[in-house]
Amino acid sequence: MIRVAIAGYGNLGRGVEKAIAQNPDMELVCIFTRRDPESFQANSGVKVVAMADMASMKDAVDVVILCGGSATDLPEQTPQVASLFNVIDSFDTHANIPTHFEKVNEAAKNAGKVAMISVGWDPGMFSLNRIYAESILREGSTYTFWGKGVSQGHSDAIRRVPGVKRGIQYTVPVPEALEAVRSGSNPELTTREKHTRECFVVAEEGADKAAIEEAIKNMPNYFSDYDTTVTFIDEDEFDRVHNQLPHGGFVLRSGVTGEGTKQLIEYSLTLGSNPEFTACVLVAYARAAARMASEGMTGCKTVFDVAPSYLSPLSAEELRAHLL
Amino acid sequence: MIRVAIAGYGNLGRGVEKAIAQNPDMELVCIFTRRDPESFQANSGVKVVAMADMASMKDAVDVVILCGGSATDLPEQTPQVASLFNVIDSFDTHANIPTHFEKVNEAAKNAGKVAMISVGWDPGMFSLNRIYAESILREGSTYTFWGKGVSQGHSDAIRRVPGVKRGIQYTVPVPEALEAVRSGSNPELTTREKHTRECFVVAEEGADKAAIEEAIKNMPNYFSDYDTTVTFIDEDEFDRVHNQLPHGGFVLRSGVTGEGTKQLIEYSLTLGSNPEFTACVLVAYARAAARMASEGMTGCKTVFDVAPSYLSPLSAEELRAHLL
Repeated sequence: MIRVAIAGYGNLGRGVEKAIAQNPDMELVCIFTRRDPESFQANSGVKVVAMADMASMKDAVDVVILCGGSATDLPEQTPQVASLFNVIDSFDTHANIPTHFEKVNEAAKNAGKVAMISVGWDPGMFSLNRIYAESILREGSTYTFWGKGVSQGHSDAIRRVPGVKRGIQYTVPVPEALEAVRSGSNPELTTREKHTRECFVVAEEGADKAAIEEAIKNMPNYFSDYDTTVTFIDEDEFDRVHNQLPHGGFVLRSGVTGEGTKQLIEYSLTLGSNPEFTACVLVAYARAAARMASEGMTGCKTVFDVAPSYLSPLSAEELRAHLL
Repeated sequence: MIRVAIAGYGNLGRGVEKAIAQNPDMELVCIFTRRDPESFQANSGVKVVAMADMASMKDAVDVVILCGGSATDLPEQTPQVASLFNVIDSFDTHANIPTHFEKVNEAAKNAGKVAMISVGWDPGMFSLNRIYAESILREGSTYTFWGKGVSQGHSDAIRRVPGVKRGIQYTVPVPEALEAVRSGSNPELTTREKHTRECFVVAEEGADKAAIEEAIKNMPNYFSDYDTTVTFIDEDEFDRVHNQLPHGGFVLRSGVTGEGTKQLIEYSLTLGSNPEFTACVLVAYARAAARMASEGMTGCKTVFDVAPSYLSPLSAEELRAHLL
């Protein structure tokens, strides 16, 4: 049994808890929290331990899955926790991955632990599809599309606009752009041509809806470079229709071999729940981290460094017989 | 530079020759052949060496890409050549992979070489997508569809029917079956429900077309379990329209997380040329084999055993900065 702990009990942490229940070779030992551990109970009934008392669990846990955010939690937590445990995180600020890697690698190497960073679907499964596809089709173009799905950052941005009571934003790939890529024409696509942004807003009583719409559509970085629609709905509809966190997207590699032969590789995800899917990826890589650590490996790893066989509970013989 | 040799100079071998030209870190050293090496020239101008003289190239070649067939060539060749060189093959008789693995593993271990078997797209990229998807979504069903594409085995079978002058067979996934899988309904699909078989035939002068059609449609193993169409065309059209070897297909994993949340992973290939694409996969894994051997690894490997970073010419730092 691989003994797992979860650090952080939000959407992602609860998703990991559910995912572990689908993996009979894994056992959830405890939840680590920065809150008062007496203030809540875990759905699965496992004990809740204060983050400050982590070291007390050192011999009872094989790997800790960090479920904090990339903005402020993980840059601090991952190196810290990697000095005590094998760890996995879903650090997803692409531009800061090299710096995060260096800090985590030093901590994990010094402690003789394996630390797997940036695990999830992007970075994560999408990254894997980029490396496989680009290693195979050396001449060509790679395209990543996101959605249809809820962007938490953009939903937060909507909710900061005065007069907005509730708000949610869906990122939607433009079908014509996807088709152009699939055709093998290797188009150069602008930001506006690749995705649209669909916003659903519940306005405060008496708010100026036209002003809200203008404020959203012209918001720099978030919306001004996109074709954005703003739809006002009532709170009932908001609660009924927009209560999930679906997401997904596409990675396409359109390449050429021989004398102009077109070749297309496409990977796509259609996720009913973004945090539950990310959780499943984290759990599979937790299995890999525990195994790699037990073989004596140490240091920071990414999905690029993990042979696929480490992810599966099946033996090498079973994999060759049934999945190859 | 990784120094590569090709053994076997048919469609696949010529595809590998073209693929190596797209990889500046690789150099094609020679073609090994069972034919008289004086009887043909390689398109790239590299020297042609008799298979019997392979050992003479021992110090000049880092990895040999075997381009023979799975029925009779590779079961003999791969263990033999693995006693002299690091090798890659595209052995694709799924049921015999475990036996092939054992034989190749023994030869490669004894010689201190790396031998990578069953590299291509199925087995190969499709296998990778099955292992990743099943490791992530533990509850669910996996579906593989092939096509639209030319099946060489089925085309050969058509050509053995009396009265058939030319023949080609396309395997076509049934769109309704694909949609049923994508819907998350996890259908049980029979052979007939998943694929149709489309045959294009040029009949010999005066042949009984009705008899040919019946013979094809009722052929056990090949056609009798499928909805098969037979279209007679003239030789001009055959040469003009059916002169390529396109292929492709889909791997889908439809799973459930949490309390019934649907999650879908889909991978697809749309290949203008099956042998040229397979060749590109072989070349990427040749890079991996050379690197793994230089790190001291030995024995038989499959795509499940290869960390993705080995496939790319980019450094670990570049991969993390640009593809993660």
